[in-house]
Amino acid sequence: MSKNKDEKLSTEPYKGVRDFYPAESAQLRYILNVWRTVAERWGYAEYKASILEPSDLYKAKGADNEELVKEQTYTFTDRGGREVTLRPEMTPTVARMVAGRRRELGYPLRWYSIPNCFRYERPQRGRGREFWQLNVDIFGSTSLAADAEIIQIAYDVMKAFGATDGDFVIKIGSRKEINRVAAEMGLDEARTKQFMALLDRKAKMDPEEFAQQFAAFGANESVLYSAAPQEVQALLEQLRAMGVANAEYDPSVVRGFAYYTDIMFEVFDTAPENNRAMFGGGRYDNLTELFDDEPLPGVGFGMGDMTIADFLEVRGLLPAYMPPTVAYIAVAGAELGPEAQQLAQELRAAGVNVAVDFGEKKLGDQIKAASKGGVPWLIVVGQDELASGTFNIKNLNTGAEEKMARSQLAQFFLNL
Amino acid sequence: MSKNKDEKLSTEPYKGVRDFYPAESAQLRYILNVWRTVAERWGYAEYKASILEPSDLYKAKGADNEELVKEQTYTFTDRGGREVTLRPEMTPTVARMVAGRRRELGYPLRWYSIPNCFRYERPQRGRGREFWQLNVDIFGSTSLAADAEIIQIAYDVMKAFGATDGDFVIKIGSRKEINRVAAEMGLDEARTKQFMALLDRKAKMDPEEFAQQFAAFGANESVLYSAAPQEVQALLEQLRAMGVANAEYDPSVVRGFAYYTDIMFEVFDTAPENNRAMFGGGRYDNLTELFDDEPLPGVGFGMGDMTIADFLEVRGLLPAYMPPTVAYIAVAGAELGPEAQQLAQELRAAGVNVAVDFGEKKLGDQIKAASKGGVPWLIVVGQDELASGTFNIKNLNTGAEEKMARSQLAQFFLNL
Repeated sequence: MSKNKDEKLSTEPYKGVRDFYPAESAQLRYILNVWRTVAERWGYAEYKASILEPSDLYKAKGADNEELVKEQTYTFTDRGGREVTLRPEMTPTVARMVAGRRRELGYPLRWYSIPNCFRYERPQRGRGREFWQLNVDIFGSTSLAADAEIIQIAYDVMKAFGATDGDFVIKIGSRKEINRVAAEMGLDEARTKQFMALLDRKAKMDPEEFAQQFAAFGANESVLYSAAPQEVQALLEQLRAMGVANAEYDPSVVRGFAYYTDIMFEVFDTAPENNRAMFGGGRYDNLTELFDDEPLPGVGFGMGDMTIADFLEVRGLLPAYMPPTVAYIAVAGAELGPEAQQLAQELRAAGVNVAVDFGEKKLGDQIKAASKGGVPWLIVVGQDELASGTFNIKNLNTGAEEKMARSQLAQFFLNL
Repeated sequence: MSKNKDEKLSTEPYKGVRDFYPAESAQLRYILNVWRTVAERWGYAEYKASILEPSDLYKAKGADNEELVKEQTYTFTDRGGREVTLRPEMTPTVARMVAGRRRELGYPLRWYSIPNCFRYERPQRGRGREFWQLNVDIFGSTSLAADAEIIQIAYDVMKAFGATDGDFVIKIGSRKEINRVAAEMGLDEARTKQFMALLDRKAKMDPEEFAQQFAAFGANESVLYSAAPQEVQALLEQLRAMGVANAEYDPSVVRGFAYYTDIMFEVFDTAPENNRAMFGGGRYDNLTELFDDEPLPGVGFGMGDMTIADFLEVRGLLPAYMPPTVAYIAVAGAELGPEAQQLAQELRAAGVNVAVDFGEKKLGDQIKAASKGGVPWLIVVGQDELASGTFNIKNLNTGAEEKMARSQLAQFFLNL
């Protein structure tokens, strides 16, 4: 090992990714747990896959995903000469897995996953090179009720995080309607793509600039802002009947992914300083055709951890860090270690999470260590306590102290 | 999208990694939950990191990890020219993170993580290119009690999975003792490494072949098989006092990683057909020196999901798959969808996981879909049921049926 100070390694992580110390790890886990709970409440089963995928899985969509595949994937050749990509999104993977067992699975198939995904992007607020993403999908249904359910789940996730209806708005668009308008405007395939790209940038653009660029396509904005297509109206009615009041039609919702074929939606933060799409989804009825001739309709959404954490943080909706450890046992001397560990084992057997100091430092320093870790309760083990069977427990957050018989400790901590 | 059948993509995952369909995903989750529960019971806090690490993190140990770094890592250059590696193990990462905040953290520091790790190896039973691994570590203690605690946690994990003492044995070795013996044998550094590599292969070798190769080092096997070093004896006593009876000294335990400096251990499967080290750990007192001049002692272990799954499967200790969804609501017609979803929402609000069919298929086909997903309970919603407020619920596993008032349904499922 190197001995020269100049040769020391950096303790920084790789650029654009995060280290999760216990407080950050607990926050991520909180987000993942809310996602998981809501998805399972709606009857979805979890699937997982490796982050390594054959690169062909993303190339097959060709120019459709040009920016993502050509500029933003982590793609390399393995030691055996295979081209492999760290998944930038989960939808191609789930389409692959469903296609692989399509005859064994029951439909409508409700699946969710919480993968980490990788994109080589410029790191910025709400965007990193590795992020976690809830993916919720229904396969095998063309019913509008499936679209409604997917949007309701997105809504329920927001509510489960403590958001109110006023904190966000669900904007619903229609790929079919955009295609109809593009045809009406006489746009060919290439121009239609440019037209959709313009719509996708709308929220980030100055209205006048948008109008100007729109006009360059040879039509007035009003061609788009007619009434909502009938299908979208029916969807909005279904959503309202189920209590989703903050959804509305927005013809400029197009989503970045070319595989969407019909209804699409985006959930916007309503805070003026952060008025942008946080996440979204839609219907993709042809994706399994990559693997199989029979089409299998799909509808789903993906929601990233970094954007939602920003949303929650701004609104004070992230819970304060609480370490999993409930009690810390400090010892009056290292020789009492086995007795302290014995007490800890009694508490653990009852289901209490307990750490024990090895008594290598003075009592005061042991308590400091417990505080630094955020452990709320302290128990000191000395000869007197062991002899009397009565222990002093102290809340390190409030300073409150209490004396308690050994036999009562487990119940006390379990009842907290 | 391609229309030619010949151009269809394979539905297979990348070579050597696994797709986790819901049953496999639930099995992995079971293993991860047992790991998490035991680690937290002992007072450990969770940390996480990205799978992407600067390649220098592994190269710094130089020849120490030659095989792993030179032949088995996934290393590539990113779009910005940075050399990056998919972590093959977690210990360098945790050393980096602890070194990065060493003054803010309290010691003894108890941390765990459940990362996925990547190694370019020939896929075989119990070994894949991506695996999950429980990592449990204590930093900042040189106490033998820390070594004992780490081994006890490994023991507790095995017991929490339902293993008996007879199913596995904990073999404890000593890097210091091996170094002492190597010095006694007059081996230089290079020969010592070869000597350790031979010891590491012992369990997989024919005893005669081992003896022959051992003799080539110019000493008799008996130099190794003297009594356990005093430190190991003291450790075994501590473990026995805490109820760990299946631990023993084995001088041939050396572990593959060169960073170990003292006590090491490996947990062996006692099944004759699978008598091999499943996982292990040990003390590494110099690892943070890569980042910092002050040494910070560490002791920990890593346990992979594939080896433990094999162990559990052979002994019938893996739980049967149960989907998270408790009830499936089938509908007598698509027009009843909103009413069915309403009933589902009542149950969900009470905490029951429920899926609803969209009524696109006949009732019999809807029930088949529920069965394929393994959902245990079926509720049929028709005009009669809605009018009477009484529902027929059927257990799809046993065929048992029961009539129940709408108001009783939630409680019934919650009490299961």
